[in-house]
Formats: sequence, structure tokens, C-alpha cells
Amino acid sequence: MKILTLLALAAAAATASVPAAAQFAKAEDAIKYRQSSFSVLGHHFGRLGAMVNGKVAFDAKAAQENADIVAMMAKLPAAGFGAGTDHGAPTKAKPEIWTEQAKFKEHADKMETETAKLAVAARTGHLDTLKAAFGDAAKTCKACHDAYRNK
Amino acid sequence: MKILTLLALAAAAATASVPAAAQFAKAEDAIKYRQSSFSVLGHHFGRLGAMVNGKVAFDAKAAQENADIVAMMAKLPAAGFGAGTDHGAPTKAKPEIWTEQAKFKEHADKMETETAKLAVAARTGHLDTLKAAFGDAAKTCKACHDAYRNK
Repeated sequence: MKILTLLALAAAAATASVPAAAQFAKAEDAIKYRQSSFSVLGHHFGRLGAMVNGKVAFDAKAAQENADIVAMMAKLPAAGFGAGTDHGAPTKAKPEIWTEQAKFKEHADKMETETAKLAVAARTGHLDTLKAAFGDAAKTCKACHDAYRNK
Repeated sequence: MKILTLLALAAAAATASVPAAAQFAKAEDAIKYRQSSFSVLGHHFGRLGAMVNGKVAFDAKAAQENADIVAMMAKLPAAGFGAGTDHGAPTKAKPEIWTEQAKFKEHADKMETETAKLAVAARTGHLDTLKAAFGDAAKTCKACHDAYRNK
């Protein structure tokens, strides 16, 4: 029950938080920014994944650190998808991102919410709790990649 | 006095914090990771710089958000400079990083300390306090770039 409350609070916090409004001089800067953010996010998510999948021994402290980074990084890339940033540098971003903005934002918000829950789950120190939250967060990655990222 | 105490606490916290131990399958992954981290860090530091230099109106909330991101990002790149990551992908990192590890670590620690202070300074909501902390943090960027980054 305590965990559920924490999860609910985390979800609320994630939804309420406004990403630092990022402004970019050129589209290529925005593209580099979002790619860099995703790259760092993906690295730390992958480290959690290694623990969740038993490839690396579970280390509660490391899990918490990685999950905190993931949750913070998840707030960043959205700012790099502003108008006019569909081209300007090599990008796998599909044009639908800019024609279905409300839907794309739903995906971004969902990522924020689930990664915030992931950070709370990691804080419990329980691998099973982490596993469940990791799975939920991974689903949001996949859903958005399937819809909005070219192979 | 309260600010000084906060600054001291922030500095202590930065020194005490251990970056999430990052492991990389290949040197190029480590290089990409550290470059991505620096890229995100630099973007948000630049946004603070625009306020500090009067190019953008001071917005205390935005300053705080950006400074928090800077402080967190500053903890990350060090993990990407492990043994054997001096080559493997295009990099401006000088070989001295790996032959002067203690000195390089001092620079990395200094960046963490000063960016943690920056985040505390931003929290005061005072532009002058932010300016001073920004200047100190910028010096740590420059010192390390001068010593360890090729043009």
C-alpha cells in the first residue's frame, strides 16, 4: 500500500513537472540534443535491464542510481522535437511526430510517468518490484519506437 | 550564511556521490556515452549562460531546472573515460587523460562540486548569486578543456 501510494505520487509528480524549456538555435542542435538525451537514458535503462534479466547481479544501490538517472533523462528529449526539427540532421524520427503531436505527447508523458514509477520502485530495494516497473517502462519505449521511430 | 551552509552541503554531497558505475561493452559505447552526457550538460549550461549574460531574461524557475540538470549530468561523463576508451570512435579527448588519471579526476570532481553549488545558487532565485556560481562552474569547464580536450 505504501509502495502504491509512492507510485501514485511519483506519477503525479512526473505529470506535473515541466521539462526545462529548451530552445535551440538550429534544428540540428535540437536533433543532437534529443539523440544525446535518449542515448544517456538508454544506457542507464540498459544497465537496469541487465539486472532485471539476471545478466548482472542485482545491486539495489546501483539500481536506484540508474533509475534516478533514467527518470530525469526521460524528461528531456521532448523539448528536442519542436516545430521544424523533423529534418536538419540524420534522424530516425518519423514525420508523424509532427502531424500527430497530441498522440506523440501522450507517449512522452507516459514515458515520464513510468520512469518516475521505476525510480520509486528501485528505491524499494526489491528486485521483483523493480522488474515489474521496468517492464512497464520498457513497454512505453517500445510503443513509441514502433509508432515514431524508423528502423 | 544560510546560502553558505547550503553551498557547503552541496559540495559535500557532490564529493560523496558515486556516479552510477557505468560499464560499456565497447570503447565506442563509452565514447558515445560521455559525448552525449557532455552534450546535454553543455546545452543546459548554455541556457543558464544566456540568462547570466543577459541574452535571455532571467527566469528563476527555468534557471533552477537547468542548473539541476547540469548538476546531475556533471556526474555522468567520468564513467565514460575508463581504460581503453582513448580510441575507438572519433574523440577530442587527449591521451593525457589516461596518463594523468589523478589529475583528470581532480578536474572531474571539481566540475561536480561547482555544478552542485550552481544548483544551490540557482535555488536562491538571485541572479547575482547565480552569476557568481556560474562563473566558478564555467572555470572548471575551461580548465579541463584546456588541459584535456583537443580543439
